[in-house]
Amino acid sequence: MTVTAEAVWQDIERIRKQAPLVHNITNYVVMNTTANALLSIGASPVMAHAVEEVAQMTGIASSLVVNIGTLSNPWVQAMAAAMKAAAERQIPVILDPVGVGATAYRTQTADTLMAVTAPAVIRGNASEIIALMVSDAQTKGVDATAAAESAVTAGQALSARAGSTVCISGETDYIIGADEVLTIANGHPLMPRVTGLGCTASALCGAFAAINPSPVQATAHAMATMGIAGEMAAQTADGPATLQTAFLDSLYRMQKDDVVRLLRAGTLP
Amino acid sequence: MTVTAEAVWQDIERIRKQAPLVHNITNYVVMNTTANALLSIGASPVMAHAVEEVAQMTGIASSLVVNIGTLSNPWVQAMAAAMKAAAERQIPVILDPVGVGATAYRTQTADTLMAVTAPAVIRGNASEIIALMVSDAQTKGVDATAAAESAVTAGQALSARAGSTVCISGETDYIIGADEVLTIANGHPLMPRVTGLGCTASALCGAFAAINPSPVQATAHAMATMGIAGEMAAQTADGPATLQTAFLDSLYRMQKDDVVRLLRAGTLP
Amino acid sequence: MTVTAEAVWQDIERIRKQAPLVHNITNYVVMNTTANALLSIGASPVMAHAVEEVAQMTGIASSLVVNIGTLSNPWVQAMAAAMKAAAERQIPVILDPVGVGATAYRTQTADTLMAVTAPAVIRGNASEIIALMVSDAQTKGVDATAAAESAVTAGQALSARAGSTVCISGETDYIIGADEVLTIANGHPLMPRVTGLGCTASALCGAFAAINPSPVQATAHAMATMGIAGEMAAQTADGPATLQTAFLDSLYRMQKDDVVRLLRAGTLP
Repeated sequence: MTVTAEAVWQDIERIRKQAPLVHNITNYVVMNTTANALLSIGASPVMAHAVEEVAQMTGIASSLVVNIGTLSNPWVQAMAAAMKAAAERQIPVILDPVGVGATAYRTQTADTLMAVTAPAVIRGNASEIIALMVSDAQTKGVDATAAAESAVTAGQALSARAGSTVCISGETDYIIGADEVLTIANGHPLMPRVTGLGCTASALCGAFAAINPSPVQATAHAMATMGIAGEMAAQTADGPATLQTAFLDSLYRMQKDDVVRLLRAGTLP
Repeated sequence: MTVTAEAVWQDIERIRKQAPLVHNITNYVVMNTTANALLSIGASPVMAHAVEEVAQMTGIASSLVVNIGTLSNPWVQAMAAAMKAAAERQIPVILDPVGVGATAYRTQTADTLMAVTAPAVIRGNASEIIALMVSDAQTKGVDATAAAESAVTAGQALSARAGSTVCISGETDYIIGADEVLTIANGHPLMPRVTGLGCTASALCGAFAAINPSPVQATAHAMATMGIAGEMAAQTADGPATLQTAFLDSLYRMQKDDVVRLLRAGTLP
Repeated sequence: MTVTAEAVWQDIERIRKQAPLVHNITNYVVMNTTANALLSIGASPVMAHAVEEVAQMTGIASSLVVNIGTLSNPWVQAMAAAMKAAAERQIPVILDPVGVGATAYRTQTADTLMAVTAPAVIRGNASEIIALMVSDAQTKGVDATAAAESAVTAGQALSARAGSTVCISGETDYIIGADEVLTIANGHPLMPRVTGLGCTASALCGAFAAINPSPVQATAHAMATMGIAGEMAAQTADGPATLQTAFLDSLYRMQKDDVVRLLRAGTLP
């Protein structure tokens, strides 16, 4: 399989038409920007984290995005309850293991959550994906300090162990399924200077997975859409803040022509 | 009564002159943007949610805005304590029942809070207002899936039962008092693509209610100001993110001419 | 000592080169914008607040920023634990006592935290700095209702008592060390209309203190950088929201020429 502009565009049109409800249990830093990204692409975000209501909220959603960026125990319990509800309804779960490896608490939490149900998609940077496989690798906070390509082997092992599609974000994104590795080379060097664009990628994976039954395809299409919107935004940005603004507008304005013109997709042999 | 540009402008000038302190207990998604909206219109926002301090913080505020968008039990307790303090001081409470009807927990919470004291204003979209009256209506998350006009009857019943001004946001906003229904037809179709503009409307209701003793008038003036700022912003916006930015700037820059030129207000017969 | 453009620029270059990890335990309102400010200047932000992990996260950071803007007891415990870890590692702690004096809970919390270890830097507005010294001064929420210069005497007493550099933000910023008071007169009148720029100043103090061993110099350089970026932003801003965006871009784009051209620094006799 390879990623085509036609297939990316078809998913974007599906999201815009169906406006799938994406339930996010995510970190405080990015709640506003990820909600806006979901609205801009055409999805319908909801944020709810109380253990009293997460299962019911997941019960009306089309996908669940769990992001461990700003953890505490009540949130971990709610994440687990929501993932259980998602598994029962067989809707896709996207796990973003922010900062895993930086502290034992994050590593334990990721393990706890992955034991509830296999996420359809695990999306992180190279450090995080390596940390999920190699427990003694301490990452430098939430930074992407390792190059994405260096984590592909770890990502393949993680994909096999967890039964999940694994996405490693970086200058090139690697989307690792059971028997294939897709690559997306879109994006712009200014994007890592904006907080939460990794988390936004995970949120978009939630939107795409809600309307495309293949987690590998949904993730590749989401990452392509991210990168293309970033490239569109960089045309007019003066710095990270105008990039963020133009990025969201580009998600909203993206047309088929943009995808055809800008998509840079491939596969690892 | 009808809404006049003169009266809207008079309230805006009062806010800019008095800079009323508005105490917000609101959801994580919108804290930044609602604080900025209050600052842009000329009010002074404060956010505090610890049960240890909410009563004292409400004690120095001119109004209280309670928004249940991202609930948990400690927050519900703090909301109730703050509403009690507001009732004792007779300052207006604005209740935004975000997502009520989507989960039993939200519906119960709204009931609990409305039992503490009658809000001066309840502001929600049509689904939420209907859900407050019809307990078996499950909303689709926080979306405005029902047209505002379809909720007017429910809004009138809610207003009578709760003793509150009820505001139903939509393409046309309906502001329902004891014996009148005002309408504001300002706004722009891009506004629902920005997260938290409904919550921002509630925050602005807090600013206007702080300086205008009539909840119906304050709410109508707040909704007019929202919609006019949205229309001003849409003149230059390229998408939802630039709309948000231009919206906040428009709150800050709005002049009497803008209100006179753009206000579209009416009443239901 | 006086503040020179050369020294400010040297610190900016150090931050951009070293990308120090700044651990923030801050309020919900500003998490996104302060993370973006740290990324824009070239630092690496991390946000973590669970008592289970804060000590370990502080253990890999180069500085710790504690901001009490939206308190609750679990956060206070985490702040204290993180400050203890910072003291053990001898990395600088920046304390932003948001709204201290507005409620007894905030005043008690500030006292509790200052008893854990002496912050390298305490940064607040005049009302907050006075409230830290004069326990019966109730501030109007988080507003800077007192002029900065009126708080210099209180700031000097606080600096002597706490053993901290004290920074009073305002139209002129006062940076108070053991035997000197530096002044920075940069900034723009529109800046107080943006929520969280005070908190952003504290976050930047964390970045500068991470790479400059003198808390007085680090704070003065951070405040100069804030004010200069604000002046650069005001050149193109149409209101508070475009000011915020241009401010972040200016942190990213700032060159030595900008600092040389715009710096307005002095000392109190």
